[in-house]
Amino acid sequence: MLRSCEVQLANVGAHCRNARFRRLRSVEQQRFFSASGKGQKRPRQEDTKGVTATKSADFATWYTQVITRSEMVEYYDVSGCYILRPWSFSIWQQVSRWLDDKIQALGVQNAYFPCFVSQEALRTEEEHLEDFAPEVAWVTKSGTSDLTKPIAIRPTSETIMYPAFAKWIRSYRDLPLQLNQWTNVVRWEFKQPTPFLRTREFLWQEGHTAHATEEEASDVVRTALELYAQAYTDLLALPVIKGVKSSEERFAGSVYTETLEGFIPATGRGIQAATSHYLGQNFARMFGIRFEDVSGHKHFVHQTCWGFTTRCIGIMIMVHGDDKGLVLPPFVAPTQVILIPIPARKDGAGVEARCAELATALKDRGIRCEVDARQTYSPGWKFNWWEMKGVPIRLEVGPKDMAQGTCRLVRRFDGSKQDVDQSQLATLIPAELDYIHAAMLEKATTQRDEGIATVTRWDEVMPTLQQKKLILAPWCESAASEAEIKSRTKEVAPEAAAAGENASILTGAMKSLCIPLTQGPMPPGTKCFVTGEPAKRWALFGRSY
Amino acid sequence: MLRSCEVQLANVGAHCRNARFRRLRSVEQQRFFSASGKGQKRPRQEDTKGVTATKSADFATWYTQVITRSEMVEYYDVSGCYILRPWSFSIWQQVSRWLDDKIQALGVQNAYFPCFVSQEALRTEEEHLEDFAPEVAWVTKSGTSDLTKPIAIRPTSETIMYPAFAKWIRSYRDLPLQLNQWTNVVRWEFKQPTPFLRTREFLWQEGHTAHATEEEASDVVRTALELYAQAYTDLLALPVIKGVKSSEERFAGSVYTETLEGFIPATGRGIQAATSHYLGQNFARMFGIRFEDVSGHKHFVHQTCWGFTTRCIGIMIMVHGDDKGLVLPPFVAPTQVILIPIPARKDGAGVEARCAELATALKDRGIRCEVDARQTYSPGWKFNWWEMKGVPIRLEVGPKDMAQGTCRLVRRFDGSKQDVDQSQLATLIPAELDYIHAAMLEKATTQRDEGIATVTRWDEVMPTLQQKKLILAPWCESAASEAEIKSRTKEVAPEAAAAGENASILTGAMKSLCIPLTQGPMPPGTKCFVTGEPAKRWALFGRSY
Repeated sequence: MLRSCEVQLANVGAHCRNARFRRLRSVEQQRFFSASGKGQKRPRQEDTKGVTATKSADFATWYTQVITRSEMVEYYDVSGCYILRPWSFSIWQQVSRWLDDKIQALGVQNAYFPCFVSQEALRTEEEHLEDFAPEVAWVTKSGTSDLTKPIAIRPTSETIMYPAFAKWIRSYRDLPLQLNQWTNVVRWEFKQPTPFLRTREFLWQEGHTAHATEEEASDVVRTALELYAQAYTDLLALPVIKGVKSSEERFAGSVYTETLEGFIPATGRGIQAATSHYLGQNFARMFGIRFEDVSGHKHFVHQTCWGFTTRCIGIMIMVHGDDKGLVLPPFVAPTQVILIPIPARKDGAGVEARCAELATALKDRGIRCEVDARQTYSPGWKFNWWEMKGVPIRLEVGPKDMAQGTCRLVRRFDGSKQDVDQSQLATLIPAELDYIHAAMLEKATTQRDEGIATVTRWDEVMPTLQQKKLILAPWCESAASEAEIKSRTKEVAPEAAAAGENASILTGAMKSLCIPLTQGPMPPGTKCFVTGEPAKRWALFGRSY
Repeated sequence: MLRSCEVQLANVGAHCRNARFRRLRSVEQQRFFSASGKGQKRPRQEDTKGVTATKSADFATWYTQVITRSEMVEYYDVSGCYILRPWSFSIWQQVSRWLDDKIQALGVQNAYFPCFVSQEALRTEEEHLEDFAPEVAWVTKSGTSDLTKPIAIRPTSETIMYPAFAKWIRSYRDLPLQLNQWTNVVRWEFKQPTPFLRTREFLWQEGHTAHATEEEASDVVRTALELYAQAYTDLLALPVIKGVKSSEERFAGSVYTETLEGFIPATGRGIQAATSHYLGQNFARMFGIRFEDVSGHKHFVHQTCWGFTTRCIGIMIMVHGDDKGLVLPPFVAPTQVILIPIPARKDGAGVEARCAELATALKDRGIRCEVDARQTYSPGWKFNWWEMKGVPIRLEVGPKDMAQGTCRLVRRFDGSKQDVDQSQLATLIPAELDYIHAAMLEKATTQRDEGIATVTRWDEVMPTLQQKKLILAPWCESAASEAEIKSRTKEVAPEAAAAGENASILTGAMKSLCIPLTQGPMPPGTKCFVTGEPAKRWALFGRSY
């Protein structure tokens, strides 16, 4: 990897409180920063790239810079595949352990099904297959020998699991059968890949359940959706809209698909955040999954499936990140507090020792806390570095702080600064993390709300899309109108491209995102904004990822 | 799935304390058990298969019955792949969460690298590839289109990770780089597959680290081995022998391989339980992984890698299991205590309510505890069922127990029974679990020790192998002698097959398992048991999996 030194700006080290304000000015002007501390010999390879692109002017470049320079992702030599480095994987582990505990608390059990599926099993469900067939990766050789039959890698596991369901379920006593697994899945898509959002391999959790009744299955569909919504709001500080997909947009083979839809303010696009499907008896019929009730009568089971993926990390980055880099929500941040000693000329060791003590006290309270005591980087470099990495709270301890028993607390998300007593940190920090989480969620919710326009006439659609907004409109819900919406909004793409967006990763056409579960009042006689037919419900539309 | 009712024996329900002894006799005679309680209509499909094969007479059939009938594994229509059902996956999750916490506590960070590897990257390391090449599964198509170049699925991740290591490591400040991932891997082996022990897809953890010095790397190799040994002894109640592999048996591309070797008394075979490798600078040279020291000089890094797989579950089953089925070590058992209400004719509800109370009290103490209150199965059926499932402790609560405030505690591993006060359960059960763990480990250790014979002359080898023992012998450690050992012991295979073993899953030839780290004294002038040359160290040999 070539580590060129592009714009190398002056040493921005702030070695003491007095230097802080100088630093703040210089940071505004510079985006690349170097390892150099005061008077240190500067090894060239330590010159570190900051984020230079701005989120508003060049979103695609900004995103690429943020995820690579903050060390979340490394590019890889197989197209569409990316390395999740510890900084991003740790976030996934926070979210997945939380979800895993919640899922198991519902009585759902973890299992592991093979990643391979035979051609026969995959073909059992034609409608389902049709949806995935073009994206299925096929293994045809082992070593130098051809396999007798090609074997697919799971794009999702219905066809892998449901033959086993048919074996295991005989009686009502075997129900509900509720399984979950955390796996990698492979979908060999040909749209431009985007790390986290659209990748050929990704990580997910997939829950699959079978029930005696539709009611029970529907409850699980909704419960899973609620869990996912909690993960977004309570961990990732991201607002989501709960809704149901239109018939055209639902999962192949499902009766209905419930969904969480997110919003990326910078591009004005919606994004599917997680889905939960009621499969009805469709798969049960295909795979012969039947149970005998108390009276000895046989019935097909009612099934659900629901999934949550590493995509959530991409949404988190796109919504919260700013021109300095990542802004991590406190409850998933790998490091919640970074302590930076600002050594005095004479007594550097004292400051470091104090930082270590404070860190220990915070760790004892369950705070994920680190001290950056590296000698080869200046405090100013460290400020920039941890800001780019998105750590929610920075604590600076300098010589004056040592004398006064204070430290400076800097919030990443709004840049606010306060001097606080060291003795109060153990109670203050948890409250700060709560506050930051709430404030980030509120900010994102406000942006999201401002990003949705209510539209009742077709001629308002294009101007609204051009303002980077989603559209909430009364809709007749016909398949024909859905097709019409797409075709009539397609011409927008070139303009979007001209406006600086990477058109190749963004489809230009608007489509239905969901019919929100929470519906506002619809006056009698309201017409569909597309067809003029009587509207059924308010639906959310937009360009999307 | 055909659910034939083979030998249907009489109702073995034991509805009250008095019936217990009758039941115990009848259980001895029967191996299949039915769902029928007293006078209940018996639905045919509930007739449940117990384990009929005996571990000593037909080990292969016994193993297959145990893993399928206890619901650990379901067979699958892709050869060499198996479904890990919740009963086995839960054990994996216990072990993997424990190991994951320990690994991260060492400062190793979790990441996720793609499952795909390009032909070019795979070819970078020829010696390494040679070892895996025949087992590599190749993706050549997506949908109906051919890929421009075939892409391999990871058999292990050196070639996937190390190009990134070369990018990330520039300076001594970037070291140590210590990463770990939990993934599936694919090795398309053509030996007869055996669930858990040899499967074409399996789950594992792989740690990969890079260091400035050999000392530091060696420390990590040993630390990982110690962790694995702890997982075996402290969680799975299995003794392991720490050793180093011979040059012929070490991991391709490593300088040396440290290993844990287990022992399966029923077959007299050794089994590799986990390995930890010092790679030296071999891979660093191939992939150009260099760092600059403080003085600006460049050096290749010293690397390690180490892995722990789902194989551990197979070893656990094979060592601890008995003719009734699984015997699970308490600290990994998905359910540690099963409470079985034995309802009185008049007041069934009282017994059940008491069981629920007791279970709540135990769960509050962190015990994994369930009540089997199913109405459609008799207590006797439940006793058999949970014995086959290997649950460490059964608590029976009957009408007399209700009056006396007692319950009967039955240990799975030795079948011992005691009547205990309900009020003491919360303190008694944790102590019982500790005792059972220690006793299981001790029993397995004794069997293992008895299964190793010290041999100094070649003519003792065959008789010892035929006694189902491993061999500890003075060895010259030459490659020629290793080959000679294999060829001279090969002829044993047909005899093993005749003795009832499934020869196809067991190689007949003896090979070196390890050179134990703990060496007994070797008198001066001791000769190698194969070549008669001067012996270097005591080494462990045996047939193996």
